[in-house]
Amino acid sequence: MAKPGGPFKTPPSRTLPAPAVAVQAMTASKRSHIPAFEVMRITDEIANRRADGHDVVSLCAGEPSARPVPGSIKPAGYTGPLGTMPLREAIAGHYRDWYDLDVDPTTVAVTTGSSGAFQLVFLAAFDPGDRVALASPGYPAYRNILTALGVQVVEIPTGPETRYQPTPELLDQAVQQHGSLAGLIIASPANPTGTMLQREELARLALWCRARGVPLISDEIYHGITFPEPGSPDPRGTSVLSVEPEAIVINSFSKYWGMTGWRLGWAILPEDLVAPLEALASNFALSPPAPAQELALTAFTPETYAERDQIVEGFARARALILDAAPQLNWGTAAPSDGAFYYYSELGPQLARFENSVDYARALLERANVAIVPGVDFDPVAGKQAVRLSYAAGEAAVAEALDRIIRFQNAG
Amino acid sequence: MAKPGGPFKTPPSRTLPAPAVAVQAMTASKRSHIPAFEVMRITDEIANRRADGHDVVSLCAGEPSARPVPGSIKPAGYTGPLGTMPLREAIAGHYRDWYDLDVDPTTVAVTTGSSGAFQLVFLAAFDPGDRVALASPGYPAYRNILTALGVQVVEIPTGPETRYQPTPELLDQAVQQHGSLAGLIIASPANPTGTMLQREELARLALWCRARGVPLISDEIYHGITFPEPGSPDPRGTSVLSVEPEAIVINSFSKYWGMTGWRLGWAILPEDLVAPLEALASNFALSPPAPAQELALTAFTPETYAERDQIVEGFARARALILDAAPQLNWGTAAPSDGAFYYYSELGPQLARFENSVDYARALLERANVAIVPGVDFDPVAGKQAVRLSYAAGEAAVAEALDRIIRFQNAG
Repeated sequence: MAKPGGPFKTPPSRTLPAPAVAVQAMTASKRSHIPAFEVMRITDEIANRRADGHDVVSLCAGEPSARPVPGSIKPAGYTGPLGTMPLREAIAGHYRDWYDLDVDPTTVAVTTGSSGAFQLVFLAAFDPGDRVALASPGYPAYRNILTALGVQVVEIPTGPETRYQPTPELLDQAVQQHGSLAGLIIASPANPTGTMLQREELARLALWCRARGVPLISDEIYHGITFPEPGSPDPRGTSVLSVEPEAIVINSFSKYWGMTGWRLGWAILPEDLVAPLEALASNFALSPPAPAQELALTAFTPETYAERDQIVEGFARARALILDAAPQLNWGTAAPSDGAFYYYSELGPQLARFENSVDYARALLERANVAIVPGVDFDPVAGKQAVRLSYAAGEAAVAEALDRIIRFQNAG
Repeated sequence: MAKPGGPFKTPPSRTLPAPAVAVQAMTASKRSHIPAFEVMRITDEIANRRADGHDVVSLCAGEPSARPVPGSIKPAGYTGPLGTMPLREAIAGHYRDWYDLDVDPTTVAVTTGSSGAFQLVFLAAFDPGDRVALASPGYPAYRNILTALGVQVVEIPTGPETRYQPTPELLDQAVQQHGSLAGLIIASPANPTGTMLQREELARLALWCRARGVPLISDEIYHGITFPEPGSPDPRGTSVLSVEPEAIVINSFSKYWGMTGWRLGWAILPEDLVAPLEALASNFALSPPAPAQELALTAFTPETYAERDQIVEGFARARALILDAAPQLNWGTAAPSDGAFYYYSELGPQLARFENSVDYARALLERANVAIVPGVDFDPVAGKQAVRLSYAAGEAAVAEALDRIIRFQNAG
């Protein structure tokens, strides 16, 4: 339960426009009240004493100092439960570079992929029985992790009218129908639709949450993979922190930086959630993967940004191929693919021949060897009519796939 | 709820002595009934079709095929949610090599450290309100993860009389006091005590569980780090699968193989738990770290075993230093350090000068720069009198630490 609305509180570390409504401090879930794993805390204390020049002998951690298995270039030990401080500082620096935002590195939690961030944040923020809203269609793991953790998922059905994004009006309807909310999860660019929330839309949603003391979690893992018009504001995507200092951001090295298999992500937390999340992380994960953390230190250089942006240009070309082929595909309404590398479309006329998107996708794979995802993964109801194409595979794969899809459909 | 005791069921893949009591099939928790993330399933199907010679174009996964950030030798993509099949097969092979056990690779789940295995197994096996027993002192993350997941922890107080391990008699007492159990977690070698369960003790515990349909989870992450008498049976440790085919094993590449920071572990599951765990893993983790999985393929060669055993010999020498110094340390009762790299001891006479083990450990760190762990991390009650020393740091560090501890105590 949130504390009763106190005076407006701006963490000094984030430069933000003053919001019009008093903010309520984020309160951690009851279930997050578990002790931290003391060994991990002592490990930090040892590092601090050593940094102060003390010659500490540690019989503390259950961690062999000897060489690891062959093939490992050097030992990679546990790090702090929220990651190494150099990486947390580098991530904070990224918010200055991309968003002109001042983020305190101690509020950055490095996690085992955004998956690790979602599970820890959901545990830290929500108790069993809490109602949490999210847009449908949406990333299925939100719904499935929340459900497994006993949280009641309130699906907000969205469509082309709101660019597949929630709005304050849709949230009001959801509250009327289901009761008050304990959280809202948004995503921009979203999976599976690729649609984005503009700064003003984000601000309206944040204000709605703030006025009701509803924690706001913003999935920004596709930031940087965007296809803005020239001169657009916030070309990388608008971070929720630009409009709401108390929101929770979740991000990842998997998409823009292409580090999927390394399993590394991060969360930016309101101050009151840092200690609960650290306690949870020290028990549920011990530490995020160390070699991935070391590699990720190279992510925020001008050279890397330039290289990644070239890759995004490749996604843009693959995206253009799909948009150009849309008339020939002869499908139904498609979401505007603002960002990420997804094209989400209703199948429209194709449903005359196929019962639903699952059958369509199965036939396409079996007869034409093209794999796409039926929409039911993202929306168990309306997803029966829709499919998601990922153009992350690049131009050549997309061109070949489009060719095969059109021939498959014409073959009848 | 477990199915009513049917005929005795031996998975054909595990060669085991026939137990005397009918086994009950393991039943997954209600909360594990979430859908798998379909994209991860289709990814598997694509791999199968490609293996059959089909030229599949995939617009399925949200995974850039382009090069990852600089410094990464090659792209490391998502693997299946339960890991790569070559690694799952290699782990199965390890059970033949070390334990003469036949494990079906499809029942092996590769996880993000043993931490990843614990959280997924607890979610798959237990519902909120279930009572799960474990020994105290014990690894704190068992208790803390279970608590955060709404499971009621039943602590079995143990001491030197039972070598700090649970027994059927202690379990009977726990049931009388708290009610029936939904699970038992055991560890051998245990953290923090290092004590081990011999095959016969393990069999008695397994029989107790089997007779009551109580799922048995065995933490075997310190197997291989053992100090057996020459000619001892099961010198690496006895796997619970040697006495109970339906038990759950949890293990890790962190300890014997020294891969702590890579975050890689595994679970071996009863067949009925494989699909629920896969569904959970596909939502909570997507996949375990891929570079770690590749490195771990080198773990099961004769050369690696030989190299790791040399490292264990180093632990043995460090252990001998502590055992030899025990009279000078002038502490109280210590657990027999059968395995792992831990020495757990009551402080005994030292408590005359220090309120408790927390104060002792703090003073030792501040005045003598030696870090050890107060027992409260492992046992909130009796741990006030005890400390854990890890000798994983090796001979030199242990010698120096012992010297400092004895001087610290003598300095008064």
